[in-house]
Amino acid sequence: MRYLLYYWPSLQGRGEPVRLALEDAGADYEDLARGPAGAQAVMRVLQGKRGTLPPFAPPVLVHGKTVVSHTAAILEWLGPRLGLVGKSERARMDAHRAQLSITDLFAEVHDTHHPIATSLYYEDQKREAKRRTEIFIAERLPKLLEYFDRAIRGPYLFGARATYVDLSLFQTIAGLSYAYPRAMKKIRKKVPALVKLHDRVAARPRIAVYLASPRRIAFNESGIFRHYDELDAL
Amino acid sequence: MRYLLYYWPSLQGRGEPVRLALEDAGADYEDLARGPAGAQAVMRVLQGKRGTLPPFAPPVLVHGKTVVSHTAAILEWLGPRLGLVGKSERARMDAHRAQLSITDLFAEVHDTHHPIATSLYYEDQKREAKRRTEIFIAERLPKLLEYFDRAIRGPYLFGARATYVDLSLFQTIAGLSYAYPRAMKKIRKKVPALVKLHDRVAARPRIAVYLASPRRIAFNESGIFRHYDELDAL
Repeated sequence: MRYLLYYWPSLQGRGEPVRLALEDAGADYEDLARGPAGAQAVMRVLQGKRGTLPPFAPPVLVHGKTVVSHTAAILEWLGPRLGLVGKSERARMDAHRAQLSITDLFAEVHDTHHPIATSLYYEDQKREAKRRTEIFIAERLPKLLEYFDRAIRGPYLFGARATYVDLSLFQTIAGLSYAYPRAMKKIRKKVPALVKLHDRVAARPRIAVYLASPRRIAFNESGIFRHYDELDAL
Repeated sequence: MRYLLYYWPSLQGRGEPVRLALEDAGADYEDLARGPAGAQAVMRVLQGKRGTLPPFAPPVLVHGKTVVSHTAAILEWLGPRLGLVGKSERARMDAHRAQLSITDLFAEVHDTHHPIATSLYYEDQKREAKRRTEIFIAERLPKLLEYFDRAIRGPYLFGARATYVDLSLFQTIAGLSYAYPRAMKKIRKKVPALVKLHDRVAARPRIAVYLASPRRIAFNESGIFRHYDELDAL
C-alpha cells in the first residue's frame, strides 16, 4: 500500500526528513500537496480521520487507517517498515531520541530568522533575528553539532548501517551550509565525522538520484534553512 | 526496579510531565538531582551509558539498562508500564503525537521570555520578549489551546481513561495560568473542556497529594512558565 505524505508543496521544511527516508528506501509514496490538489490536500488532512487525533500541523503521513504526524513520530513509525533503523527496542529508541534532538535543532534554526513570530515577515523582525542568530552561531550551533559528531559510532551514527537519523543529519548539514556558508566553513572543521557522514549519505545511490531530481525542492527563503547574507556572521 | 529521574532540582520545566506521570501511577522513583548529588547527578547522566546514545539534555529516565531522554520519548516508554496509555498501537501513537504538540507549546512558551537566547538573562531581552509574548498570546495560544479543547473526546482527552497526556495538559493550563493570569482569564472561557480536564486531573487522588507535597516544586522564574507582570497583556 502506498504511503501518502502531506506537507507544504514549495519547501523542504519539516517534511524533508520524511521525504529522504521514503526516497532512500525506494518506497512507493505520493507527495500529495505537490499534485493537483496543492496545499488544499494539507488543509484537508488536518481535519483528521474518524477515531484518530487530528494532526495539529503537517507533515502528516497516512497509510491505510494509520495517521501519523510530527516528523520524529512519522520516522519512528516508518523506520522499521523501511528498514531504516535497527530491530531492537534500544536501537529504535536511540534513533527516536536522536531525531527529537534534530527536531529541536530545526526549531532553533527556524527561530533564528523568526525570533518574534512566524506570522510576521522576516523583514519585520530583522534586528531581533540578527541578535538571535549571532548567539546561535557562536554558542548553540557548535554545541549541537559537536554533540552529534561525538556520538558517531561508525561510518553512520549508530555504526555500519544507515538509519533515518543519518538522512536527517545529512539534511541538517546541507541546510546549515546553505543558510550560513561563512559560519559553517569554520564550524565544519570542528565536526569532521559529521561532515563525512553528510557526504556518505549524499552518495547513497537513491539519495543521489533524488537530490538530482525535480522531486528535491531547492533550499529557499520559505523553509527552515534560509540564507540572509546579513545573518551569516563570521 | 526503581525508576531514576534526572532533571534540574529547582524547577518544574520539561521534567514535570514525567514527575506527574510517575506520581499519578504511584511508581517507585527517585528524583536524583533533588537528593544529595544535586545537579551533579544530571551532569553525570549526560555522559551516557555504554551502548546507548548519550542524552543531549535532561530530563533523562534510567531503568536498568534503559536510558531514555526527551520528555515525550520518556512518556511514550513509561506510558504502557504505568498504565497511563491505551494498549493499541493507535492509542499509543495518538498519545505520543499529542505529547509532541505539548512539547512544541512548552518550547514556544519558554521562548516568550527568552526570544533571543537561553544563555542571556530575561532582563537582557525584555523588549523582544514583550513583542514575542504579545503575538503569542493573541495568536498562538488560542490556536494551540482550542486545538486541544476540540480534540477532547470524553472526561479525558482520549475518552474515559486518563493518559499521561492529560497530566501534561493539566500542567499546561496550570503553568499558563501562573504565567499569564490576566490573559488566561479571557482565554479560559474559550476552552471550557480543557479547563474542566485540568480540574479533573488536579482532583485525582495521587495528583492532589503530590501537588500539596514538598515534592511539587512551586512555579518560579527559572522554569518554562514564568510570571513577568509586563508580559501578561490584557
